[in-house]
Amino acid sequence: MGGRAARRPGRGRGERNPVPRRGRYSWSVTFPVVGMVGGGQLARMTHEAGIPLGIRFKLLSDTPQESAAQVVGDVVIGDYRDLDTLRDFARGCDVITFDHEHVPGEHLRALEADGVPVRPGPDALVHAQDKGVMRAKLDALGVPCPRHRIVSDADDVAAFAAEGLAPGAEGDGFPVILKTVRGGYDGKGVWFVRSLEEAAEPFRAGVPVLAEEKVDFVRELAANVVRSPHGQAVAYPVVESQQVGGVCDTVIAPAPGISDELALRAEELALRIAKELGVVGHLAVELFEIREPDGTPGILVNELAMRPHNSGHWSQDGAITSQFANHVRAVLDLPLGDPRPRARWTVMVNVLGGDYPDMYSAYLHCMARDPQLKIHMYGKDVKPGRKVGHVNTYGDDLDDVLDRARHAAGYLRGTITE
Amino acid sequence: MGGRAARRPGRGRGERNPVPRRGRYSWSVTFPVVGMVGGGQLARMTHEAGIPLGIRFKLLSDTPQESAAQVVGDVVIGDYRDLDTLRDFARGCDVITFDHEHVPGEHLRALEADGVPVRPGPDALVHAQDKGVMRAKLDALGVPCPRHRIVSDADDVAAFAAEGLAPGAEGDGFPVILKTVRGGYDGKGVWFVRSLEEAAEPFRAGVPVLAEEKVDFVRELAANVVRSPHGQAVAYPVVESQQVGGVCDTVIAPAPGISDELALRAEELALRIAKELGVVGHLAVELFEIREPDGTPGILVNELAMRPHNSGHWSQDGAITSQFANHVRAVLDLPLGDPRPRARWTVMVNVLGGDYPDMYSAYLHCMARDPQLKIHMYGKDVKPGRKVGHVNTYGDDLDDVLDRARHAAGYLRGTITE
Repeated sequence: MGGRAARRPGRGRGERNPVPRRGRYSWSVTFPVVGMVGGGQLARMTHEAGIPLGIRFKLLSDTPQESAAQVVGDVVIGDYRDLDTLRDFARGCDVITFDHEHVPGEHLRALEADGVPVRPGPDALVHAQDKGVMRAKLDALGVPCPRHRIVSDADDVAAFAAEGLAPGAEGDGFPVILKTVRGGYDGKGVWFVRSLEEAAEPFRAGVPVLAEEKVDFVRELAANVVRSPHGQAVAYPVVESQQVGGVCDTVIAPAPGISDELALRAEELALRIAKELGVVGHLAVELFEIREPDGTPGILVNELAMRPHNSGHWSQDGAITSQFANHVRAVLDLPLGDPRPRARWTVMVNVLGGDYPDMYSAYLHCMARDPQLKIHMYGKDVKPGRKVGHVNTYGDDLDDVLDRARHAAGYLRGTITE
Repeated sequence: MGGRAARRPGRGRGERNPVPRRGRYSWSVTFPVVGMVGGGQLARMTHEAGIPLGIRFKLLSDTPQESAAQVVGDVVIGDYRDLDTLRDFARGCDVITFDHEHVPGEHLRALEADGVPVRPGPDALVHAQDKGVMRAKLDALGVPCPRHRIVSDADDVAAFAAEGLAPGAEGDGFPVILKTVRGGYDGKGVWFVRSLEEAAEPFRAGVPVLAEEKVDFVRELAANVVRSPHGQAVAYPVVESQQVGGVCDTVIAPAPGISDELALRAEELALRIAKELGVVGHLAVELFEIREPDGTPGILVNELAMRPHNSGHWSQDGAITSQFANHVRAVLDLPLGDPRPRARWTVMVNVLGGDYPDMYSAYLHCMARDPQLKIHMYGKDVKPGRKVGHVNTYGDDLDDVLDRARHAAGYLRGTITE
């Protein structure tokens, strides 16, 4: 066996870590440490997906009560906005990745300067951090987007609205969508503005504001891809994402009734964006499906997220390799796993906090009713409207699969009681 | 929603935990804590399977380096043979379960007397701890077993061997199998004895010794079932288990070519044993498939294990609900998940330690060669012959599924280098 290393040239880990001496040795010599910044449910589920790989997982969490901090063995409590904290944390890691997109870019550059791989890196991540930068880049790439521009005040919003009117059309062009370029998520930092009067509010925070046309979409889709540093990329099937009140409610994989042509176009678009932006890890491209003037279906890019994403949670039970497992593989520059579905249909429905705190007692009904149900709870405090878990169901009959997921999620939330 | 609790009578958790006050509340109020004694890979994989349920998982591990201790958030380091340690550990747990069968029965009774549910309980567990007790119980139930009896010395072994000779047959009746009634696993504590001279060795430990006939079996099977305190039970498909050197090497689910009649007989036998022994949680019944004198296939019970078992690892990727998820559900008295397979064939091959310590570098080859491969590593020190992980593959073509699993396991071990 002595010649084995020689017969395997170019193996990254072998090059970076000298072969340990014979005798008593330990995997920890060569198995890498993935450092995850942020203790939310995405970190929790990434840890879960990383356990089978035998890697070490280290978490930087704001508090010990965070979703992931409850289940990870190696947890550092600290503030990701503090560079010294990040540097201390990164010292024991082979690579740094993220549960969220809020780590300041200058901190990530400092970590890179220290020699720690940051995946995705700051040059990619900025497109998920700043909607203005994202739109400018997608424009430069010729990627179809909603009509948009940075606006300076309420009057400028009115001007933007009017610019959208067809020649000779009546009205003022409202409503439009306003978004702060940084800090928004799940409908926060987003305003649906119907008039000049309503247009003032978003500017109060002093953050640049992006105006976007209100797209008359057919439905929302998401194209999820994962890309590795060596350039390999995989595309999950395009899914339909149904929002309620600006928050993802239901995801159906694959998107029902989507043509092969449109699905392929969406997947290729997401792969191209991942490549052009230099994404490493998971990229979710949230899309509007629209009807083009000639009646054919089209797509516009709504948002980008560079981390495992709610629209990919179905993959935990519905794909050969989950988005979380592939994110881990990507940040470690390992070959990616197969993203194809294992079932004809998989449905994910989010479980939101309701008025009743005791979700655990609802397990009895849900599990007894549907032995195939997949529950994924995050260990988070229940607050009304907060995402505290999701359920996955799969099968051949979409109506049945949808019914089962919605019943379970509703029962856990407390909106269904029988 | 105020009436919800009233409309859900008899919910165990709701009864035991008063509904918390409205206002800010936390899941930890009602989500139970599962205490796992033992830090091996079974605990590691049970933790992994418990994360989606949002339960709390607490581990008692001998050292911080154990397989499960690396990945669990709430770890107590201590010796499970010390009752005070066990009691301290159990104080924060809603239920206690096990990674192994070595906790003394009197300690378990003390915990039960303290009011802590122990699952499986000591009255069941003794059948997996003591092969003499197990054989006596199975005899009493009329369960088919290899010919056996407790033997007192080498001469008694010779007598036992001779008793197995057909009337008028030549020879001394050797070989026979000798087993210490306690403490054996993976071929340890088991002797293949060919002569009177070899029969002395097993008695040196001073532990009672069980003699068993050497069964001329067709193959080894395993019937895995999970049973809950309220009596619900599920049976996984019967699998074929291939041993090398007394250690499980390959498991094929379902057992190829098994008749529906024999599979059903094995499943019913395992369910019956689980019920009669009062098992809670996972029970593995290791079986010999034999040819009866009339030429029809038959089964004999070889061993029992009351915990998730190597012969059930395929279920992580091949069944709707894994043995680990169902073990957690069972010890919490939750309804059990569907044990049926998701694929035509699933194959598990164990990864044993070889001469080359750097298994991680082998990931590149294995993952690139087979994007559908499922690797499960335990974070254990690599020692030659030690189980350090396993791989699962699944698909429609058994030869292909077997090839892929064996190639990956061999490459990780270092016995295949291309």
